[in-house]
Formats: sequence, structure tokens, C-alpha cells
Amino acid sequence: MFNCVIIRYGEIGTKSKQTRRWFEQILVNNIKEALITEGVEYKSVLAKHGRIIVKTNEAKESLDVLKRVFGIVSLSPAMEVNAELEKINKTALKLFRKKKRELNLEKPKFRVTARRITKEFPLKSPEIQAKVGEYILENEEADVDLKNYDINVGIEIMEGKAYIFVDKIKAFGGLPIGTQGKVVVLLSGGIDSPVAAFLMMKRGCEVVPVHIYMGEKTLEKVRKIWNQLKKYHYGGKSDLIVIKPKERERVLRKLKELGRENYTCIFCKFMMVENADKIAREFGAKGIVMGDSLGQVASQTLENMYIVSQASDLPIYRPLIGLDKEEIVGIAKEIGTFELSTLPEDEVPFIPKHPVIRGSWEEFKKLYREIFGEEPKERGC
Amino acid sequence: MFNCVIIRYGEIGTKSKQTRRWFEQILVNNIKEALITEGVEYKSVLAKHGRIIVKTNEAKESLDVLKRVFGIVSLSPAMEVNAELEKINKTALKLFRKKKRELNLEKPKFRVTARRITKEFPLKSPEIQAKVGEYILENEEADVDLKNYDINVGIEIMEGKAYIFVDKIKAFGGLPIGTQGKVVVLLSGGIDSPVAAFLMMKRGCEVVPVHIYMGEKTLEKVRKIWNQLKKYHYGGKSDLIVIKPKERERVLRKLKELGRENYTCIFCKFMMVENADKIAREFGAKGIVMGDSLGQVASQTLENMYIVSQASDLPIYRPLIGLDKEEIVGIAKEIGTFELSTLPEDEVPFIPKHPVIRGSWEEFKKLYREIFGEEPKERGC
Repeated sequence: MFNCVIIRYGEIGTKSKQTRRWFEQILVNNIKEALITEGVEYKSVLAKHGRIIVKTNEAKESLDVLKRVFGIVSLSPAMEVNAELEKINKTALKLFRKKKRELNLEKPKFRVTARRITKEFPLKSPEIQAKVGEYILENEEADVDLKNYDINVGIEIMEGKAYIFVDKIKAFGGLPIGTQGKVVVLLSGGIDSPVAAFLMMKRGCEVVPVHIYMGEKTLEKVRKIWNQLKKYHYGGKSDLIVIKPKERERVLRKLKELGRENYTCIFCKFMMVENADKIAREFGAKGIVMGDSLGQVASQTLENMYIVSQASDLPIYRPLIGLDKEEIVGIAKEIGTFELSTLPEDEVPFIPKHPVIRGSWEEFKKLYREIFGEEPKERGC
Repeated sequence: MFNCVIIRYGEIGTKSKQTRRWFEQILVNNIKEALITEGVEYKSVLAKHGRIIVKTNEAKESLDVLKRVFGIVSLSPAMEVNAELEKINKTALKLFRKKKRELNLEKPKFRVTARRITKEFPLKSPEIQAKVGEYILENEEADVDLKNYDINVGIEIMEGKAYIFVDKIKAFGGLPIGTQGKVVVLLSGGIDSPVAAFLMMKRGCEVVPVHIYMGEKTLEKVRKIWNQLKKYHYGGKSDLIVIKPKERERVLRKLKELGRENYTCIFCKFMMVENADKIAREFGAKGIVMGDSLGQVASQTLENMYIVSQASDLPIYRPLIGLDKEEIVGIAKEIGTFELSTLPEDEVPFIPKHPVIRGSWEEFKKLYREIFGEEPKERGC
């Protein structure tokens, strides 16, 4: 029944004309990539007059995919017909009937909202609304109600075509991936880091996912998580990078010898960020993303994050820093990573009983010297 | 009618016993401070058995205040009576009637949920529920419905007292201020930075608000914003710190001379962070909070944030980094800073027409040398 999808985007609209063109082009490319990846056939994807029209006979299938393309604010499966009043009337009635059946209402309240985006069509918007409304009232049990309506019949007219729709589906918003550069994300297999990755992707970043190896079971889980996240990463190219840290065993053994196992988690995280830093330089990424949320576990303190942050001079982005666990879990469930994050993982043998809660940078440097024979690279003060 | 408020808290419950005590104590103190600051009278604030009971005859007024204390998940204005069935019945009926009037329902559906938190009371929870339910049915037009109820009559029994309530009001959650240390927040007067401050406060941070002076009008506005934010800062002590940067005029003039006004915003922000860093050291704050959201304006890029981040070796927390403008505005409206942020402010005379979008660190360092006669302090690479 539908032969196209109308795509509306938000923030792009507020940029300068030049930036906007560029954004639109990236969004169009990401949309194509998404549809091709998911095997949804389409005839064309065209940006015009502040919206993008996808012509396709697989409108329904395409909606499921397009909902996951960042930069898109809302979507309407629509019928494109020639902009002639009779055709508009008939199509509007058809869609009205479809929606009425769906809602299972005997006498729905409705309104018609028309917009001429280009002005060739002879009737003005209020006239179109009146005509189409009348036509529906002549043919169906219904009442007009501009405020408390059950059905909104939308009509947009441009370049000799009319687009008619009865649904407007919310998407994630954000910015098209690829418009904001690249960041490295440390993916652990827990609930938080995939959500952090998702939020950065949503704001237009291509992410380079890095996993620090803990064991096969955890790795398999992280692969599943990344495969799920890829469904939001159209326009991004990265594959999961897995790093087996050579030094870890030695470092943790040494900490044990020194009787300072309580610094194990901090050293682990510090080395993770060092690794992420290397990958970032190799791939031209401009930041490192972590799933830290303040105070979620006793050791997620400002003091410990201070130490870990010294492992790289790249900014560390922590999009979850201000969120409660409940909010993070909510997002994880919405994007389909929660269940994967609760799959079994390898036991980590070296987690200390009492990790240090407020680590000291001076103490850390001392231990670092004893283990590596040199200071960690100094940063500033 | 009510003589107390039951306070429920979330994440604290998951901590170790020792941490939990400490958290509870801070939360109790913050609650007292909030009530005293807002002139709400109370008799006592006591933590017991995983909840906090505030005894007060000003339950309604206290709710408005307590909703803004972080760490609290939900609140119920309640009646405390001796744990005797007859008293419980009568009180439950009274509250049921009150709620019925409020909802304006002729025959509401209801349920009773009882919990014995300590076990002295002779009846078990299901028996209490049955007895109280019966009593209400004998005295009022109503139906029991455990799933689709209009009214939930809650009863909690502990230490010889019963607490009866019919409302459960959601609060912000988060962690009690003071449990997570201190951070400096750069407050500009815009929409974003107050929201960033709010989110860090919500996660238990005391914030030290720093404003870099732009003019009297903006300052007055920022004072109003901080006064509003203080309503969420019970337990925190800070006053607004205003810094008039001595060097700014000279730096910006010099940039103009060099024909590099496009770096004005980056230098301004860099100097802001340098100032924030100094304040942080003075006040023992462990991080700097900024309202950056990626790509919101053309110059909020990973490249520019990289440069600005080099101004301090403290971690920079950007709780809005993964949020859309719409989401940020939503929070700003909810917490009452949005309207204040849209008040008029001083025109900033030195905003360049074309700020650099992807600033280069090398270029920045060169300019810095020319202006200050030395390199910015090196950090790592």
C-alpha cells in the first residue's frame, strides 16, 4: 500500500546551509547503507526541502531499519501520488480507513493537516484540509476534532507530488554517524559500556570498539554485543579490536608481591586506557569513551577516575557519568544490549577483595615505578 | 492529617553495610539541612530498616522540599499510628476516603499492600491485607482489584508502629550530595551548563560553581541560575565564584593582531579551564564539569574539546556529551533553570564570525607561544 517513507531530521536543520548539505549527504548515505545492509529494497533516497524521501515498496521493513539511523527524528510511511485533488482525496480516504480498522474505532475523531512545501498546487493548505476533510466525512462515519483526534491525516505537497500519511513514528534523533569524527570505545561486556557507545554513536561519532581480552566466554559475549550495536552504526566501518595485554599477568603478580592487590583494578583500567590510546592514534580517533557512572560501585570514584585519566592525553568521554543505574539499564533494554550483557562471562581471577576506593596518584606513581622502572608519562602539573 | 513522610532510597541499599551506614547518615543530614533551609518544621529524621522516617506535621510542605534531595527514590506522606488492628483499619479507611475524593471516583478499585518490617505484630502480611480490605469494603463503595487498582493502600509495620499511606511520589534518585566528593562546574548562563551541574549533583557530587565574568547582566543571570540550582544542593556548601580573567583582553587583542580571531573561542575556553583548574586545587575538587554536547554548535567538535582538555590534568566531566538539545532542554525545564537561562545577557563583543571548527593542537600551541612567550604545559604525548 505504501510506496515511500518520509524522513524528518532535527538538529541538522539549524546548521548553516553548507554544513546542512554536508549533513544531509551523510544522512542519505547512512540510510542507503542501512537499507542495503539489511536487505531492504528501495528505488531512491532523496533529500529535498528539509526532508528525505525513501521510495520503496517495502515501507514496513524499511521502518524497522530506519528507526535505528541516527539523525532521524521521525518517520512516516506514506503514499506518493500526483498532486491532484481527486487522487489526494481517494488516497487520504484509503489511509483513513486503514487506520480506523487498526484502531478499531466506530466513529473516530480526526483532523487533516496539509502543507504545501513548494507552492505550485492551486489550493492553499487550509483549503486542502477542508476539501479532504469533507471528502472523508462524506464517505465514513467520523467527526472532525482538531485537538483530541484519534487520526491525523497528514498531507505534504511538493514538486507536483502529494505525500499522504497517517502515522508519525519517533526515531532516536541525534546526528548522522560520521559527522562528528571518531572515538575509541572500551567495551567490557558489562551493561554500561555498550550504552556509552550507543550514546556517542547517537551524537554522530563513528566508534572503534576495543575489547581487552579476559577469556573466550567474555569475548564471545562482547562479539554479540558489538553485533547488536552495529545495528545502530550504519555509516561507521569499524570491527571489534581485541587486545591481549602482554604485561597484565606480570603487573598483577608484581602488585601481589608488593602486597598492593588493592590497586589491581586501577592498574587494569590504566592499562586499558593506554591500549585505547594507542588504537586511537592508529585509527585517527579523537577521544576515548568509557562507561563510568559516578559511585555505581565503590571504586568508581573521582579519585580513581583521576588516576585512570592520566593514561592518555586524549579526552575521556563518560556519557553515563550523570545517570543512575536504573536509567542505564533502561537504555540497555531499549537498544537490545541488556540481555546480552547479562550472559555468562569468564571469571576474572585477579579481582581483589578490597579494591582501593580513593586511590592516590602519588601512591600509584610509586607502584608504577616499582613495576615498570619508570614514571608514568607526566601530564601537566 | 499526615504526621510523617516515608522516604525510600535506592542504590545505597546495594552497598556494603559500612558504606550504607555512612550513606544513610549523609542522606539524613542532607534531609535535615533541606528542611531547615526551607523553614519546614519537623520532629525527627530517623533511618531505620532501609527507609527514613521524617516525623512532621507539615508533610505536604516537606514533600516539595524532599523531592529535591538526591538519593531519595520515592516518598509517601503517611500516618503513623500504634500497630493495633483497629487503629490501622480506621486510618486506612480515612486515607482511602481522602484519596477517593481526590480521584472523584464513585466506586474505585483498590488493593491493600502490607509489609511487616519487624515481626512483632501478630498478623502476617496477607492477613493484614485481608482484614483491612474487608474493613474498607464494609464501609465504602469499592471493589478489590490487585492489578488494575485506582488506589493502593500501603501499610508498613515496624517497631510497634504502623505507617499507612496512599501515595508514592517519585523523586530524582541519584546519590546523596557529599558522598562522591567535589567538582568544579563552569557556569556560563546558557541552557547547558546548569543541567550538567544538576546531573553531577544528582550523582552525589558537591559542586563548586565558577563563572567567568562577561558583564553585569550575565552575572546577575548566573546568580539566579545558581540560586535555583542550590535548591538541589542541600548538603553542599559552595557559593558562586566569579573570576574576572585579567589576561583575556590582551589575549584576544593579540589574536586579532595575528589575524587568528577564529581561535578566540578556543582560547577563551582554554583559559576558563585553566581558571577552573586553579579553583579546583584550592577547594580540593577532583574534576571539572562542562556542559559540552557533541556537535551542538559547529565548534563543539572532538578536535576543539581535545585542545580545551589540555588546559588541566584533572578529568573533565561532560555529562551532556551524549544528549540531544531537546533532551537537555527537557531537563532544564524540569529543574527550573530553562527560563533563567533565556534571560537577556551581555553581548560578547569578541565572538568571531567564523570560529575554527576543527582546531589544531599544533596551531594552538604556536599561537599560545606567540601570545604567552612559552608553551602550554605539556601533557603526555
